[in-house]
Amino acid sequence: MIPFEVTILGCSSATPSADRHPSAQVVNIGGENILIDCGEGTQMQLLKYGVKLGKINFILISHLHGDHFLGLPGLLSTMSLMGRKEPLTLIGPEPLKKFLEDFMLISESRIGFDLEFITSETSESKWLYENLLFRIRCFPLSHRIACTGFLIKERKNLRKIIPAACEKAGVPMSFFKELKLGLDYQEGNEKTIPNDQLTQSPNPSRIYAYCSDTIYDESVVDHIKDVDLLYHEATFMHDLLCRAEITFHTTAKQAGAIAAKAEVKRLAIGHFSSRYKTLEPLLDEAKAEFENTELASEGRVFRL
Amino acid sequence: MIPFEVTILGCSSATPSADRHPSAQVVNIGGENILIDCGEGTQMQLLKYGVKLGKINFILISHLHGDHFLGLPGLLSTMSLMGRKEPLTLIGPEPLKKFLEDFMLISESRIGFDLEFITSETSESKWLYENLLFRIRCFPLSHRIACTGFLIKERKNLRKIIPAACEKAGVPMSFFKELKLGLDYQEGNEKTIPNDQLTQSPNPSRIYAYCSDTIYDESVVDHIKDVDLLYHEATFMHDLLCRAEITFHTTAKQAGAIAAKAEVKRLAIGHFSSRYKTLEPLLDEAKAEFENTELASEGRVFRL
Repeated sequence: MIPFEVTILGCSSATPSADRHPSAQVVNIGGENILIDCGEGTQMQLLKYGVKLGKINFILISHLHGDHFLGLPGLLSTMSLMGRKEPLTLIGPEPLKKFLEDFMLISESRIGFDLEFITSETSESKWLYENLLFRIRCFPLSHRIACTGFLIKERKNLRKIIPAACEKAGVPMSFFKELKLGLDYQEGNEKTIPNDQLTQSPNPSRIYAYCSDTIYDESVVDHIKDVDLLYHEATFMHDLLCRAEITFHTTAKQAGAIAAKAEVKRLAIGHFSSRYKTLEPLLDEAKAEFENTELASEGRVFRL
Repeated sequence: MIPFEVTILGCSSATPSADRHPSAQVVNIGGENILIDCGEGTQMQLLKYGVKLGKINFILISHLHGDHFLGLPGLLSTMSLMGRKEPLTLIGPEPLKKFLEDFMLISESRIGFDLEFITSETSESKWLYENLLFRIRCFPLSHRIACTGFLIKERKNLRKIIPAACEKAGVPMSFFKELKLGLDYQEGNEKTIPNDQLTQSPNPSRIYAYCSDTIYDESVVDHIKDVDLLYHEATFMHDLLCRAEITFHTTAKQAGAIAAKAEVKRLAIGHFSSRYKTLEPLLDEAKAEFENTELASEGRVFRL
């Protein structure tokens, strides 16, 4: 299987704490790096955790609260100063484009590479991008301002070689790549051996879902049904439900409930309020609703 | 003497390195905290070095390159989220005001305290602010975009009590505060004792000068003559003079030369290029021109 992993760079809510940066994480799928959200300090966190800026070709921004995008102008400037020439795809709410242009204007600077901007759809679910490796979908979240979640879905998995069958049929290893892609085998003018005699069905496509920031809203369940890993915000403990509702955030208990309803395989909770010095109580609260829950923390890697 | 000290929060040039944040420092003068420049991550650095956000009442921004102000929207948002009500004075180039307003607009947020904005003068030297403790002056620097340096000058120093004279004249300690401010002493209907028989002249007012970013330009010398501490950028070693000139920055050797010409008491160099892993060669180069040079580093405190 190709690598598909999520590295947490920041999991704080709006007010950072000494050991938690604002929202940012990087998804590596088959060597393609997708940055999701880019809070202040993200470029330093990328340095700290050894993610090369030149390897990031996609940036997704969920919404325009400062703790989710204020690291973006600095990150793009640094990429440009380092001589980047490869294009970069940026997905986010429409006003983000002008904000970046205004920043370039007042700083009298420019980005020295192509920035392809794709406007996220904040009112309905929509596929926004696809390549040979993955597809990116956005879906609406219920927050104080327009906000989307994201799905990253492995596009096509490779079929699995049956070594004994290949050996018996005399298929050379040099043809294995084609076999994995589903091609039949034909040696010279000999008869064709159908692919399904030499390979097994691939694993199902893995899916990662990102939900931050949002109030508890069961309409999200349809969008994230059965995903392999769900990252969901859990800003407060449930005793602060009233505070969560006023600020359009979720409690740890509610995050667990959403994961259970969506029947996801694993849940990672994050976006913690700085009032919590230890996070185990949030974990316990979420686990009471959905056992397979883990805490996001800076530098932690979740492998799908 | 009242405290007058500068704490370095960031001393990197535009591209940060793993252990150096972009420009920011906080000046504490008599308990008033003045933040100078506010690169990305400054609010985290303030947390790290124990500077309470509520104690910062002044922010000065030298120019609008991202590494000098991209931490500002996040810092102001956090101050507001923490319930700040005290007004804050912000000094910087004119376009900064609209940039912050636009950020508030797209993030649908507001600053819950009064922000008094004072436009810095980028074409001539000018006193911009004064209170009982200090005055702030800006002066033009020669950079790629409009940029100013800043002087912070202790406004008036307290006279020094002569304990023996006060004891002989029977002056109670409860009157010492007035004596330090220069008032004469009169007990009931007795004769007045002139202040200068009870106190000595105060120390001369201390001055701190901040010069970042700038090309080598001797016209700055008049503005920073005889200051107690000069912070001057030293982005490159002198073998990269050509690079320094193209990018409108200064070499360590040139920073030392400016300090020598201005006959300042101490020089701190900073704003180092991320290409330098060790900084001693920059220090040695500056010291060859001006012996009393020190390196800025994160968390270091310079006391005037």
